Amino acid sequence: MPTEVIHCAWLLTMAEGAEPIPDAYVKIVDDKIVEVGPWQDGVAADADVVTDARTKLVLPGLVNTHTHAAMVLFRSLGDDYPLYTWLQEKIWPLEANLTAEDVYYGTRLAINEMLCSGTTTFADQYFFMDEVAEAVAESGIRAVLSRGLLGSDAEVETKLEEAIEQAKKWKGKADGRITAMLGPHAPYTLSPAALRQIVTAARHYQLSLHIHVAETRDELEEIGKNYGKRPVAYLAEHGLFSRPVLMAHGVWLDEGEISYLAKQKVAVAHNPSSNMKLASGIAPVAQLLKAGITVSLGTDGAASNNRLDMFTEMRTASLLQKVANNDPTVLPAETALKMATIDGARALGLGDQIGSLEPGKKADLIMIDLEQNHLTPCFNPASLLVYSARGSDVAAVMVNGKWLVKEGRILAGDEEKVRTAAAECAKRLAQLQQGK
Amino acid sequence: MPTEVIHCAWLLTMAEGAEPIPDAYVKIVDDKIVEVGPWQDGVAADADVVTDARTKLVLPGLVNTHTHAAMVLFRSLGDDYPLYTWLQEKIWPLEANLTAEDVYYGTRLAINEMLCSGTTTFADQYFFMDEVAEAVAESGIRAVLSRGLLGSDAEVETKLEEAIEQAKKWKGKADGRITAMLGPHAPYTLSPAALRQIVTAARHYQLSLHIHVAETRDELEEIGKNYGKRPVAYLAEHGLFSRPVLMAHGVWLDEGEISYLAKQKVAVAHNPSSNMKLASGIAPVAQLLKAGITVSLGTDGAASNNRLDMFTEMRTASLLQKVANNDPTVLPAETALKMATIDGARALGLGDQIGSLEPGKKADLIMIDLEQNHLTPCFNPASLLVYSARGSDVAAVMVNGKWLVKEGRILAGDEEKVRTAAAECAKRLAQLQQGK
Ligand SMILES: [Zn+2]
Ligand SMILES: [Zn+2]
Repeated sequence: MPTEVIHCAWLLTMAEGAEPIPDAYVKIVDDKIVEVGPWQDGVAADADVVTDARTKLVLPGLVNTHTHAAMVLFRSLGDDYPLYTWLQEKIWPLEANLTAEDVYYGTRLAINEMLCSGTTTFADQYFFMDEVAEAVAESGIRAVLSRGLLGSDAEVETKLEEAIEQAKKWKGKADGRITAMLGPHAPYTLSPAALRQIVTAARHYQLSLHIHVAETRDELEEIGKNYGKRPVAYLAEHGLFSRPVLMAHGVWLDEGEISYLAKQKVAVAHNPSSNMKLASGIAPVAQLLKAGITVSLGTDGAASNNRLDMFTEMRTASLLQKVANNDPTVLPAETALKMATIDGARALGLGDQIGSLEPGKKADLIMIDLEQNHLTPCFNPASLLVYSARGSDVAAVMVNGKWLVKEGRILAGDEEKVRTAAAECAKRLAQLQQGK
Repeated sequence: MPTEVIHCAWLLTMAEGAEPIPDAYVKIVDDKIVEVGPWQDGVAADADVVTDARTKLVLPGLVNTHTHAAMVLFRSLGDDYPLYTWLQEKIWPLEANLTAEDVYYGTRLAINEMLCSGTTTFADQYFFMDEVAEAVAESGIRAVLSRGLLGSDAEVETKLEEAIEQAKKWKGKADGRITAMLGPHAPYTLSPAALRQIVTAARHYQLSLHIHVAETRDELEEIGKNYGKRPVAYLAEHGLFSRPVLMAHGVWLDEGEISYLAKQKVAVAHNPSSNMKLASGIAPVAQLLKAGITVSLGTDGAASNNRLDMFTEMRTASLLQKVANNDPTVLPAETALKMATIDGARALGLGDQIGSLEPGKKADLIMIDLEQNHLTPCFNPASLLVYSARGSDVAAVMVNGKWLVKEGRILAGDEEKVRTAAAECAKRLAQLQQGK
């Protein structure tokens, strides 16, 4: 087992209560972190490799807790529509033509984009998930996969069987980098019976649930009209919260719902760019945090963002909460960083494995190149990361102890090939759409 | 006079009503654009230089219409405070120790940051403006400079004389890249008498005015308490609008004020990141645009942003207006691009010289490297630029016919020296502040 020591200018471990450490080191054995701390003579004595990162800042890899990776194929197709129109008139018709190959190349492209901007784990809800898993396995990234469950009861039944098969098949594969959740799409795309069936399966197989909830006012109205309840009460009625829930969006939550959710095993994946771009609304993130709910960050799909860059989401989350709450002290840089790292890990049920750089955890980390105009001067590393840094400042990325990115490029070397293949898939899909 | 032809994958001229042109060219003679259009055999026949940009997108250089460049020295010092506290307890004490050398190096660093992220013209309001002008002259960027006018009547009188001297001295210098405006700081940092004196001078010397207006609710209250009026009425009373006005912020404007401003020679410089970060509020940009007011974009100083990247401001402006107006069709990508280019030029009184790529205009242009994961696929160049691109995607920058950036680096070659010198200035200032 090779031992690697990274000697860096700054280390943000994101361990509870830890301050940024100047002139620090991280020691890695195989896929795990074994030591971190201020640099001292001798710490690298037994190292096989010493990586000189004395102009770099090291922090945990970022955790994108809600996306639909392959939707990068639809980037710039269908901007400036509201959610329902966008889904029904643009996205679903495009998705109707998606092939397994499209999803494979779309996901590969998305993973390359995510890795290059510092994301080391992502939670995906989509379809052709075997191809998504293959893309994850090949690329070296870590992922939590959910086959999207929506449609008629018969469709959901078939998809649910598929999802359970896949969860079994992937277990322990790709060096343990893939885990599964069940993915009921949203309260408005499933019948109550289908929802109950999914919850029953989740209990039986001890799986968590990844679901879109309270994203738009339209959803509130539709659920109100159909069931006489708000979405959270409706989902609670059908047992959703009997399993841990990763709730994407949570934009339209009232005080009562926030108190209720604080008592359940629920994490909210906040997607500020997507919520702004689709004009869905501003999630009550400050209130959720105050209630003690784990809030993580997500990019959502690239069709509604239109990028998969967690640096953008950290900054946007912070700035949006400040102006929405009329209070510049809300959601400071440290909190945004927490949401993007350790709380992201917790939201995915991986809090004991990733999200901070502590002995015993997996070696998922990124390096930021500090020698840049827009990162000068460096007084406060957390502030610099959230307010000034960009995804393009990520110089190197390690997942599970393996370097996947160095000098800002994917080491696997097929970046251009993936880009070309994905662009061709996208072109074909756009032409099919236009041909209608 | 050398003739250069750029052959590019896409050209966005930003000329009125023009569509993006695939496989296009721009012909430049000396400092001016002489031809643009779809690539054809023979267009480069008389060229001394042909630049192959067939994997790049060319558009006009971005115009940052409101900043305080040297404030990059205060990046990350004093985050998460409201405007008044931030100014009084953090920024003004730091500024009290600023030397001419600090401002020179701070401005050089800011210019390097701006150039590398695609800004070719900026409007600055600060002090030690001779050093700012020197930094502009040396770097090759274009700028509209305003010596900040604030303080007691006696102070303003001295500063105003200085400002007029500087305006005369710079006229026609640096190949005409420097112009001047007078810079009354804000309604709350000047007496009515001082304001009138500045307006009188502006009329006499035919200068425009660059001023912060209606940035915060506190300002509204203070002006209301002191003068029984809202800021716009107060400024109108003292003749401000008898000269063209570049109004920074305009966050707290009501319908009546918007109608009034639509009839004056006023452009509003919108600074979405700064307004969000300081929790100043959300400017009524959609309403200003509807009223026919020229709205441009600005970063404000790096102390309240904390970066000088116009790509961030385009994206943030668009997303913020969509969510604030509960309408995803508001401020589409094309409008954000207009605000950052031609309308920025108009806001600075330079609409006939820069802001679009048309024969007769100055050759201020930038190139975006399209061969990147997060810019794939390329269906809609405007959408890609606003929603997906980052400042770091700028591969090359030309100002006044001269290449200043290639392969993302400043050609002048002293980027690292400037960074080191600026970091030292910042360190000294921070230590002086802490020593208090
Ligand atoms: Zn989603
Ligand atoms: Zn300002």
